Amino acid sequence: MAASSLSVVNGRVVDVLPVGDRGCLYGDGVFRTVRVTHGTPCWWQDQLARLSRDAARLAIPCPAPDRWEQDLGQLPTGRPEGVLRLTLTRGEGNRGYRPPGEPTPNRIVSWSALPGHYDAVAATGARVRLCALRLAPQPHLAGIKHLNRLENVLARMEWSDSEIHEGLLMDTQGRIVGGVSSNLFIFQGGELLTPRLTHGGVAGVARDRTMAAARRLALTVREADLTLESVYDAREVMLTNSLMRVWPVARLQHRVWHTHDLAHTLRELLDD
Amino acid sequence: MAASSLSVVNGRVVDVLPVGDRGCLYGDGVFRTVRVTHGTPCWWQDQLARLSRDAARLAIPCPAPDRWEQDLGQLPTGRPEGVLRLTLTRGEGNRGYRPPGEPTPNRIVSWSALPGHYDAVAATGARVRLCALRLAPQPHLAGIKHLNRLENVLARMEWSDSEIHEGLLMDTQGRIVGGVSSNLFIFQGGELLTPRLTHGGVAGVARDRTMAAARRLALTVREADLTLESVYDAREVMLTNSLMRVWPVARLQHRVWHTHDLAHTLRELLDD
Repeated sequence: MAASSLSVVNGRVVDVLPVGDRGCLYGDGVFRTVRVTHGTPCWWQDQLARLSRDAARLAIPCPAPDRWEQDLGQLPTGRPEGVLRLTLTRGEGNRGYRPPGEPTPNRIVSWSALPGHYDAVAATGARVRLCALRLAPQPHLAGIKHLNRLENVLARMEWSDSEIHEGLLMDTQGRIVGGVSSNLFIFQGGELLTPRLTHGGVAGVARDRTMAAARRLALTVREADLTLESVYDAREVMLTNSLMRVWPVARLQHRVWHTHDLAHTLRELLDD
Repeated sequence: MAASSLSVVNGRVVDVLPVGDRGCLYGDGVFRTVRVTHGTPCWWQDQLARLSRDAARLAIPCPAPDRWEQDLGQLPTGRPEGVLRLTLTRGEGNRGYRPPGEPTPNRIVSWSALPGHYDAVAATGARVRLCALRLAPQPHLAGIKHLNRLENVLARMEWSDSEIHEGLLMDTQGRIVGGVSSNLFIFQGGELLTPRLTHGGVAGVARDRTMAAARRLALTVREADLTLESVYDAREVMLTNSLMRVWPVARLQHRVWHTHDLAHTLRELLDD
């Protein structure tokens, strides 16, 4: 592990996993990314609820919140800002794809430093590129933050320019799915729209929070099938995830947005 | 690890991987399954060639054959029959989907016992069910034996009846892709047909060998988009992978086949 990282596996401070873990063998597990601010994991209950819901969709039993909280207690204190990754795999089993009837999941909590650019981009707006890779629509995995993320890896490999902050992903049917690491919202005609996650994408906690915040502003919030044109036509475009919170989009390919008012307002409301 | 398993990671006999390995984080890697018979790994050069080709498609540098052979040398001897799994991951990196510019891959060789039914089913024929899960067509990953195998896991979870030996997978466009853990061939009108792997599936070494063997029999061998109807209509249906070698299909849903002549012939020719 990099020196800036630290992990707790099943309650023990170790930096290794059994080589036969099905997460390593098949990507058979789920995860969540949690921002830590002022020593506190943000949106903790929501994150655990989403992790548990995702695990249930794969029939992986999710440990109760107090187990995760005990794990957190094992991480060294005194690091007020950072990123947690919570991973839950189906654990070990016999050879082959068939899972064990009663899995013994492995639980991993990893800490790493928060890259410095997240809050800066939130202020100035993100530069976004359109990815060439199109996601394959899979209703059985849509919305789940599972460990099968090769599509995201391949999409992220499309650019190395550090001036580009995120990539926009479409699926093979031409629907907008979201960012490589984020959910997408567009604001148009008084409505806040975000892609339906029936065929792909991840149901992020920041997405839930953004929708709730917009409803408190009395905006109409709707999940829809979005086209690339609808994104270009939007008055404002924004990206959300637990680290970004809300990023206004300043540029997508050659389209530039100067108005970020709603993005900034939602960002301020996200914790309420 | 189960007591019947044993692993060599980067040349050392250990049973753990770094928790930050991208194989564990994202399924960012490839693997191959190799049958060991009379103490010899079958089709060894072909397996390494396929592993290397798959790794190249994901831009993961693959170690030279002699490294894998040294790993094999670390496994305890005296086990003439078994199964090897060769896994190559992109190794560790910084947080997030973006891979390191110069990855240091992790190399894992794991040994496990060969389940007893493989050769028995080859003689009697396999009973196969049609899976409800439909694969999502993804040309960028098609053919690669990568670590993103949740679709296979979910498909394999559809049945627990040990009298069912394999599941047949279609994609969301209605094309036959193959078995959950195997490639499929149908014999009809003097032609041996197998699904094209342009949208999904794994290009197995046993598939290559079966095609080569059939050509030595002067059969026409063709990759094609196959429908479920074409499978039901076939004179013979067979499944291949490195452990099965060639399994004749005796039953798919309610369709029964009594003729397995070509399957048995190909099976005998597979090592030539």
